[in-house]
Amino acid sequence: MKVEVIGVTGLPIIEEGDDLAGLIVESANSQGDPLRDGDIVVISHVIVSRAEGRTVDLSTVEPSQVAERFAAFTGKDPRLVETILRDSRAVRRMAPGVLITETRQGFVCANAGVDKSNVPGEDIVALLPEDPDESAKRFRARVRELTGREVAAIVCDTHGRGHRDGEVNVAVGASGMEVIRDRRGEHDLFGYELKVKRTAVADEIAAAAELVIGQADEGIPVAIIRGYPYDMSETSSALELVRPREKDLFL
Amino acid sequence: MKVEVIGVTGLPIIEEGDDLAGLIVESANSQGDPLRDGDIVVISHVIVSRAEGRTVDLSTVEPSQVAERFAAFTGKDPRLVETILRDSRAVRRMAPGVLITETRQGFVCANAGVDKSNVPGEDIVALLPEDPDESAKRFRARVRELTGREVAAIVCDTHGRGHRDGEVNVAVGASGMEVIRDRRGEHDLFGYELKVKRTAVADEIAAAAELVIGQADEGIPVAIIRGYPYDMSETSSALELVRPREKDLFL
Repeated sequence: MKVEVIGVTGLPIIEEGDDLAGLIVESANSQGDPLRDGDIVVISHVIVSRAEGRTVDLSTVEPSQVAERFAAFTGKDPRLVETILRDSRAVRRMAPGVLITETRQGFVCANAGVDKSNVPGEDIVALLPEDPDESAKRFRARVRELTGREVAAIVCDTHGRGHRDGEVNVAVGASGMEVIRDRRGEHDLFGYELKVKRTAVADEIAAAAELVIGQADEGIPVAIIRGYPYDMSETSSALELVRPREKDLFL
Repeated sequence: MKVEVIGVTGLPIIEEGDDLAGLIVESANSQGDPLRDGDIVVISHVIVSRAEGRTVDLSTVEPSQVAERFAAFTGKDPRLVETILRDSRAVRRMAPGVLITETRQGFVCANAGVDKSNVPGEDIVALLPEDPDESAKRFRARVRELTGREVAAIVCDTHGRGHRDGEVNVAVGASGMEVIRDRRGEHDLFGYELKVKRTAVADEIAAAAELVIGQADEGIPVAIIRGYPYDMSETSSALELVRPREKDLFL
């Protein structure tokens, strides 16, 4: 069994209003890797946000008093903190250098997913897409329209972890596939019934994608995962990957 | 840029004393995917533990009073709890169905990594390898001896996450490669200096591996990651992926 992780190269700098699916289809064709049925397309959230106009020019942001105070405590830019708070519905953890919030969409992550890198312009930051699941769904529909191919799509972002060091890529939007593979009730090699095995496959796919997306110098914001037999779904959401607050083990 | 994730099939049931590297080299050859320089071999910890004799027959375990009490509270088998506590140096979190400890090696995970599935025998459980970094290092040396190839090796286990639902595969042992890619000081596409980017590449590689390892019905406990340009290292350790306790954000 073999799974391929293919970096999509040659995309232009994405701007508001761009036909992201069209550009990705074109780049994949140009490099000789046209999309196939069953492919999973993993897209860095920054280019989705740029195409959707979800960027903020910090020079236009007036920080509130709360933002000023949090900024002093965390050592962050007050205009950035204001932008983070506007995109959050709760602050989960704060420390010098650390501001972990619950985003409007429901994700728990540093800086509400607001991202400076790979956004052009001195003071421009990218927010998370308004509804990353919908972004993924629209992407799939456009791919279908352009190519007739049936793919799954994941919008990804890099997140830190509570207990483990370093960041990993995770899914913040998903469409076309189950994000968790529930293996409870399946049996292992020795006939033992798996009791607790629920695999976060969409996060593992996002992590695999960063093996090619992570090459910043080459500017690869998109990966194609080919050969992974996912469970199709038209109703899944990346928010299924977020532990409900009442079950969060480390509030 | 393309990375391949290749499942290694046809391995026998691993038993104590088996030459794991020899068996993996043989299987990879048989299926037409002989190891190459620069490959990363990802090995499920359960077969490493089996080869090293790190299994426990629960029927021989006499639970202590503490284990009995923790078992009653968590709803787990007292003999299993005793085994978990013997392999732990601290209990981090306990709740019905939940026992998160700090293992002897220093990992923070459910049940100290003690694993029931894919171990033959009614009451047999697999512990984590005594020193998974050393296991990975020995594996590489034996591969070098048998084939002359220079590979990196990762021993993996599936861990739950505090804030996110479902489990993902992570690295608990590593040798031959840097486990974190520190990109601070590098520049993004627009010349912006990356300030916080430290990518847990060994965990992303373990996650990618589970795209083929996760197929329990096919019994694939090993994956080869081919085409990923890692930074070589002879001194790295998977313990670098564990946040030091004083920096743990969610104690």
